[in-house]
Amino acid sequence: MTVRFLALYETPTDPDTFDRHYREVHVPLGRRLPGLRRYTVGRNVAAVRGEGPYHLVAELEWDTMDELRAAFASPEGRAAADDAARLQELAPVRSMIFVVEESVG
Amino acid sequence: MTVRFLALYETPTDPDTFDRHYREVHVPLGRRLPGLRRYTVGRNVAAVRGEGPYHLVAELEWDTMDELRAAFASPEGRAAADDAARLQELAPVRSMIFVVEESVG
Repeated sequence: MTVRFLALYETPTDPDTFDRHYREVHVPLGRRLPGLRRYTVGRNVAAVRGEGPYHLVAELEWDTMDELRAAFASPEGRAAADDAARLQELAPVRSMIFVVEESVG
Repeated sequence: MTVRFLALYETPTDPDTFDRHYREVHVPLGRRLPGLRRYTVGRNVAAVRGEGPYHLVAELEWDTMDELRAAFASPEGRAAADDAARLQELAPVRSMIFVVEESVG
């Protein structure tokens, strides 16, 4: 089983400041989250349908929803959430959690 | 290397019709795409930040961007794109492609 946290950031007013903060501050905070199995970031995002692509697509994976929730509630999780609030000032975000269901693999 | 196609569907006016069409028509079309490595769908999606969660989060993976582009250009890809246009009548979609960059894992 895999559960995923997906964060989608719109294009920031100041992409350089956003990218630097994300890379230098937010990624290190995310890496410390307990039980984290995988942390990926989308590069060279290009739209296919609908509105333009998101500026940044980040996905963090845990084995179970309980472990994800424990990570979010931990001191490391609260530090990452505080920094996510700062990032949200730089670019609108839409984030969500879900269970990953395999359709083929 | 992994490249991903990410499709995010807003809540449909008629979720039952959308879900049935997605499951019975669109997933089988997607599974036929040449070179597809993984096809996952998000279940029990719950919002964390920003607007409500998307109704459906679908992710399809290939090894390279060339293989993804070849799959989209194939007869199977055109059939899936035609059906995606039908799905878009049932729920607004925002879809994109990107290279998956590992931050940890």
